[in-house]
Parts: sequence; structure tokens; C-alpha cells
Amino acid sequence: MSPELEIPWLSSASARKKWLVGVSGGLDSMALLHLLDGAGFRNLVVCHLDHGLRGRESAEDAGFVKNTAEKMGFEVESAKVDLKRLMGESGESLETAGRRARHEFFADGSKKHRCKRLLLGHHADDQAETVLWNLMRGSHGCRGMSEVSVMEMGGVEMEVFRPLLSLRKDELRAWMEVRKFKWREDASNRVNDVVRNRIRNEALPLLADISMRDVVPMFARAVKDDEAQEELVDWAISQVNVLDPQGRLHLGVLRSFPEVLRTRALLDFLRSKDVPGISAALVGRCLGLLDTSSPASVNLPGGARLRRRAGRVFLEEN
Amino acid sequence: MSPELEIPWLSSASARKKWLVGVSGGLDSMALLHLLDGAGFRNLVVCHLDHGLRGRESAEDAGFVKNTAEKMGFEVESAKVDLKRLMGESGESLETAGRRARHEFFADGSKKHRCKRLLLGHHADDQAETVLWNLMRGSHGCRGMSEVSVMEMGGVEMEVFRPLLSLRKDELRAWMEVRKFKWREDASNRVNDVVRNRIRNEALPLLADISMRDVVPMFARAVKDDEAQEELVDWAISQVNVLDPQGRLHLGVLRSFPEVLRTRALLDFLRSKDVPGISAALVGRCLGLLDTSSPASVNLPGGARLRRRAGRVFLEEN
Repeated sequence: MSPELEIPWLSSASARKKWLVGVSGGLDSMALLHLLDGAGFRNLVVCHLDHGLRGRESAEDAGFVKNTAEKMGFEVESAKVDLKRLMGESGESLETAGRRARHEFFADGSKKHRCKRLLLGHHADDQAETVLWNLMRGSHGCRGMSEVSVMEMGGVEMEVFRPLLSLRKDELRAWMEVRKFKWREDASNRVNDVVRNRIRNEALPLLADISMRDVVPMFARAVKDDEAQEELVDWAISQVNVLDPQGRLHLGVLRSFPEVLRTRALLDFLRSKDVPGISAALVGRCLGLLDTSSPASVNLPGGARLRRRAGRVFLEEN
Repeated sequence: MSPELEIPWLSSASARKKWLVGVSGGLDSMALLHLLDGAGFRNLVVCHLDHGLRGRESAEDAGFVKNTAEKMGFEVESAKVDLKRLMGESGESLETAGRRARHEFFADGSKKHRCKRLLLGHHADDQAETVLWNLMRGSHGCRGMSEVSVMEMGGVEMEVFRPLLSLRKDELRAWMEVRKFKWREDASNRVNDVVRNRIRNEALPLLADISMRDVVPMFARAVKDDEAQEELVDWAISQVNVLDPQGRLHLGVLRSFPEVLRTRALLDFLRSKDVPGISAALVGRCLGLLDTSSPASVNLPGGARLRRRAGRVFLEEN
């Protein structure tokens, strides 16, 4: 018997609470479902979205997930979308359209079942792909997925949990095989677009071959370092006060901060004023106000202005 | 004429000061040498180390660098090592032995010429390789090379400058070709070991092909983000006081810190006590003292102990 998998989260989380769990029928999410079942979770809502990409096989995936979940005594939420049609309508890539469809599906399930907790089956190999992909497209730092995070999905703030994030896909497969649990090959919540597939099947194996070591744990570690840095930013911003008694940004204080903290302070300020359409580029323009030789105001989306005067920066409504 | 390269550093640095510059004779370092010459630097010491790896060609590289530098009116420092022999003696890899040999060579030049400023010709393509290599071997975060850094080389604290770090190799080549400046193909300060070559010739092109974009600038950006985070750690540690009036670490204060800052505070404490052989693993063991259910002391290299008592952590000599 393949040994039990070590998942500290499983024993620390409340098995009596209600949880949504995303289940495609593939190895990863079926392993998650069996692990939750074995750990005594009784109040799961098994959510399956049929992306409509693989015809009859997609329908069989849906049936397989429904049967398994119902035998375990869980509720099932399922829906079907026509992803190709959605792509045509929105002009989005397969990956983007698929993510949006899943987010809306989870948001619907969240409202119906009054539950904002969502469990997903991402593992360490997914994490390595994500890190490399984020790095390749110029996302900041070594960003990956978090074990626990808050994500906006279709207008709902969901708490997303990924209990399998430190496990390898091979570990999950061995665990499932020994227990003779079934899964659907090729079923995947994640739309396996060309880029993802090539990162998985070409890039990661090449990097492992070049360095003569398994690179997946290395990438996972880089994410941990990135998260630790994020933790420091959260802590640092909680330790400082950049507002004057009138609630305006104090330029002298802001200037004394390192760049990361300036950016965060300005971002928090814009958010606290409900400025719409905040982007990294907008924050960059606003930070330009620190230079007193620059124009003294920046136009904001929504019509207001951010104005610099007498060593302070504040919002000026129209 | 290929346009002038934009190198803000060149116009901001003092051309009258003395600078060591590492020149292999390859494209990158020859471009750096010509750029410095053109920018009016007159007090250069051109440092060339012959790694003894390519027989007569290595000797020709050395002669080429010497002739060019002397025509420009610069001093030349050169030396020859037998890298294969050094590897055999130390059991180090080609990369490690090469780096150590160069560091000792630069340290010697630094002492002889009483100059701790060293210019190197690394460019953006080198940077991308370095980031990927660091990521693959599990170095923390997205570490790369810095435009300005302090490095210990053979016992000397050198200030290392890399003015070309944001330029592409192709830009340097075009600039050199238009001006008909010569360089030695295959000459390189950096020992081109198998791993580096495969990252350059296989991994980076594959990642560019998969993402259908030039990935080099993306990797360079990740380094900037990492550096900005480092700046925050430096700032944060300067804002806090974790020592009690007796100079002992205050456990309660240390516990209130995020992990990155705890690690840094403990590292600074060990360094201030001149503890030898400080490693990430040692710092990790010392941080175990924060858990009051753990043993109350940690043995340090050199014979002293780090002890926890009454909410404080301090060094106990033997």
C-alpha cells in the first residue's frame, strides 16, 4: 500500500463545514476528492464544469464525476459551456475564456450554496508550470499559486484552498493506483492550451535534463520566497502611517519609503478612495507626483484627479 | 552608423578615477573597453586572465587584448592559470574553479593598483541565463546580477559595476560591427561550461518559441522586482530595534516580525558577533529558538552557543 500522503491542511481544516470542490474527473481533482472523503469531509459540493471541448468524452467525464460524488453522498453542481463559442464571441484565448467560464460557474455555485470556500486540486507540477509561465510573460517576481488565497471570481470574493500544492503528480498517481481509485484520462479543469502543454512537456523536462536535477521543487521554493517577501510588504505597510490628520498622503513620508512600499501605499490610497480601473501603469503615473518638477496633478479613471500641493497628495473630485 | 548605445552610467561615472576592467577579448568585454575609451576614461587597468583552456588561441586572445589596450594607452594586467589542473586539485566544477581563479586574479590586481572598482561586461542575455540557472538550482527568488554590487573576491571587498547589463548582445555586436572594432570569437571571461551553454542555446530559445516573445527582457524585469524587495528588507531592518539594552535579541520583538525580517535580524546578530561559517541552515536552526518548546541552545561553528533565556537570545562563549 502506497503510504498516506502528508497533507497537514487536511487534518487542520474543519471537515464539518461546507466546502465547494472543483472536480474535472482527472487524476488531480479525483485524488483531492478521495482524500477529502477519507479525511471525513461530509459536506462537500462537488462542482464540475463541462467545457464542451471533447464531445462525448466530456459528457462521460461529467457522468463519472456525478456518479462517484453521489456514491460518496456529496451534492453535485454541474454545468456545460461551449468554450469554442465563448472564445469566438469574446476574442479571448482558450486559457482566458476557460478561466472566466470556470470563475462564473464557481460564483454561481457559491451563491446557490452560500459557501465562499473553494478547494482545487493543483499540485507542485502545476505550480512549476505556473512560475515558469509567469516569468516568461513578465509577471512580477516569481509568482505562483498560493495554498490559501482570496480570489475574485465572477464578482464573488472566494477563499481558494489548494491542499495538494506541495505534492507531486506522481505521488498522487501512486496513491490512487494502489487504492484502485479511478479517474478520467485527459479530463482537466484546466484548459490545456498549447503554451501550458509545451511548458509541461518540453520546457520543464529540458531544464531538468540541463541541470541534472528535478527542477519542480526548486520552482516551488522560489514561490515560497516570493510569498515571504509579500508578507514583509503587508507587515511593513501596517507599521507605517503615511497619511496626515486630514487623510492626505504625506509626501515627505512617502519619499522616505523604499520603492516597493511607496507603490503599496499609493495603491492602498487609491483603493481606499474607490478609484476605478487601478493598474500598475496608473500607480506608476501617480508616483510621478513625488518628483516636484513634474505636473502637480494626474487624471484618474472616473474623472477625479490626484493633486500635489504643499507637501501633500490628495484626491480632487470634479 | 549604428546609433550610440544608451548607457546612463557612462556619463554619470567619473572618467578620471582609476578603474579595473575585466577584458577577455570577446565581444562583450571589448565593447565595454571601446565604450569606456570613447567616453573618455583614461585611467583604466585592463585585466586579462588566460584560463589556459584553448591552447594557442588563448595566448592569441591575451596578445590581442594587450595590443588593443596599450594602443589606447591603458595599463594591462594579465596572468595565466591552468584551469584543468586547478579543477583536478580542488575537485571543483569548471564554473566554480574558473570563478575562483578570476576572483583571485582581480584581488591581486586590486592590491597592486590600489583600486577596488571593477568593471565587467555582462549584458542582458547573460542576466537572463543567470536568472534561469539560479531558479533551476533553487537559489532564493529570482536572483540575478546587479548593475552595482559589492562582492568579496579573494579576500578583497570589490565594488563591481556592470554598465552593459540592460543592453542586448545583438546591440553590442551591431555597435561594434558598424565601427569595425575587432573582438576574438569564443574568447570569454566566463568559462562556458555545458550547463551555461545549454541554457543559452537550448532553454532560452525554447522558452521564446513557446511564449512567442523575447523572454530576455522578462527575466531582467524579474530581477528588478527581486532587487526592489531586497531594498525593502534593508529599509525595514533599519527601522526596527530588536536588541535590548544589554545587546541581546528580544524574543518578543523578533516573534512579531515577518519571517524574512526575523531571518535578516538573526543573520545580522550572528555577523555582529563574528560567528564563523554562517549558512542558511545555521540561521534556520537558530530561528528554532523562537519556539520555546525547543532546546534552549544551539551550538555555533567556532565553539560558542546561542542561548535562549528569559525572553532573550544571546551568545554564550565557552
